[in-house]
Amino acid sequence: MTEDSTRATQRGTAMDRAVFFISDHTGITVEALGRSLLSQFPDFRFERTTLPFVDTEAKLHAACQRIQARHRDTGLAPLVFSSLANAAARAHLLASGAVVFDVFESHIERLETALGLKSAQAVGRAHGLHDPVQGRERIGALKFALDTDDGLGADAYGTADIILVGVSRSGKTPACLYLSLQYGIAAANYPLAEEELERVELPRTLRAWRDKLFGLTLAPERLHLLREERRPGSRYAALPQCRREIQAAAALFQAAGIPCLDTTRMSVEEIATNVLHHSGLKRPAW
Amino acid sequence: MTEDSTRATQRGTAMDRAVFFISDHTGITVEALGRSLLSQFPDFRFERTTLPFVDTEAKLHAACQRIQARHRDTGLAPLVFSSLANAAARAHLLASGAVVFDVFESHIERLETALGLKSAQAVGRAHGLHDPVQGRERIGALKFALDTDDGLGADAYGTADIILVGVSRSGKTPACLYLSLQYGIAAANYPLAEEELERVELPRTLRAWRDKLFGLTLAPERLHLLREERRPGSRYAALPQCRREIQAAAALFQAAGIPCLDTTRMSVEEIATNVLHHSGLKRPAW
Repeated sequence: MTEDSTRATQRGTAMDRAVFFISDHTGITVEALGRSLLSQFPDFRFERTTLPFVDTEAKLHAACQRIQARHRDTGLAPLVFSSLANAAARAHLLASGAVVFDVFESHIERLETALGLKSAQAVGRAHGLHDPVQGRERIGALKFALDTDDGLGADAYGTADIILVGVSRSGKTPACLYLSLQYGIAAANYPLAEEELERVELPRTLRAWRDKLFGLTLAPERLHLLREERRPGSRYAALPQCRREIQAAAALFQAAGIPCLDTTRMSVEEIATNVLHHSGLKRPAW
Repeated sequence: MTEDSTRATQRGTAMDRAVFFISDHTGITVEALGRSLLSQFPDFRFERTTLPFVDTEAKLHAACQRIQARHRDTGLAPLVFSSLANAAARAHLLASGAVVFDVFESHIERLETALGLKSAQAVGRAHGLHDPVQGRERIGALKFALDTDDGLGADAYGTADIILVGVSRSGKTPACLYLSLQYGIAAANYPLAEEELERVELPRTLRAWRDKLFGLTLAPERLHLLREERRPGSRYAALPQCRREIQAAAALFQAAGIPCLDTTRMSVEEIATNVLHHSGLKRPAW
């Protein structure tokens, strides 16, 4: 056998492993949980399969057959991360011969003991984001973020929970959209233009909303790369220009007392959660 | 610190319980996990506090003090959902006297046994979304979704992973943004206008991309409510108009062989995950 790093090897080495994520719902939580755990084993190559909406006996049976087929083909018991609220379904999965890590199995009994009450064990209940009011709030927040993106809709700033401020390409838009979709937070964003930066004073539009302002910044080198993608070779993207704007923004944030986050090495969810954390904004109840 | 004290009772009944979510990172996964588990106990009122970025001994110490303060004030041991990759940190948390449910504690040893290898136990590693390539892919996908929202940028459909189609207010935009931010999928969306619906044939713009099309529909009563919010009392929002458009869209989807999802009772993540699942689109590797 030649050396082969593809994940599709029929019979891999001991460092290849088939992994399934099984949920009676979207599987987003169990994927995130499994991802966290598997990232602790960087030397392995995991062949991942997500099976969401496994909410009937027939679908569970089909899932077990797929797992067993990979077991036969690879000669190794697949790892299965599952979040099945139904105890009988969990038992069925365990009988497949896979190594099962179940979100519920591992915690629900201790939780029942701690609370002194049996759990509801209901499929579908196990997902707190279903509440239609909260759903509507998130869609409303998303609409707000889209309507107030990039300096638009400043007349709606009165209803903003937060207004992100930063130079062009500092990650404001993704952060606002994530804040709205994940947390239902009404987040606007305002780009600092060069003229505004030169004056080192808060743009007029923002002055009434000082308490809602939150600055995003990043390393000039990173900003340079991001801008090069948009307008290669431009003055806008040149490193000295990026340096000047970042320095001017930092001076402005300091002068106006605006809290500020360096997003250089952050993913969009890290930016959003850090903004939430450092702004003192309350996470909405769920 | 970000605080989410939805119910700030000092000393509640036995059905009130303080819950903490503690993470050395964003806390998004452990919140989702805890939410799933707690939703199984609908009779309780949980006072929730999320403490993200607990990544130093000092922060952990402060967290433990807050937990112990709630223990004293309520007379009940708080529940703590944690995702601390560091074993010493977990031990510290356990010593606080809280009832701790730890994502790592409960699975990592069995995972080590199953894989025959020790885990890395590294803070920060425990979060698979940090990979800058994947982060950039998601930001690229988000830009695509914004550029091709609501029928815009149709000349970019060649690079779309999927194109959502549906009447106005059928939930296309939130679904596209969620697909991009959560899964890095390049999702465009195209609104079916009344004239196009009347013809019961695929709009010219979409014909070349039949394999990428995916329809969204919903109950006319629900569409009516959503449109009333946008334009109250209008012909656009009237129930008979909503009925006609939904029927025409269904006929079009069927005639053109476009798979279709009823989003009436779905949250944005349910819509996105269902689209992914039913379209046969692969989840991107992570």
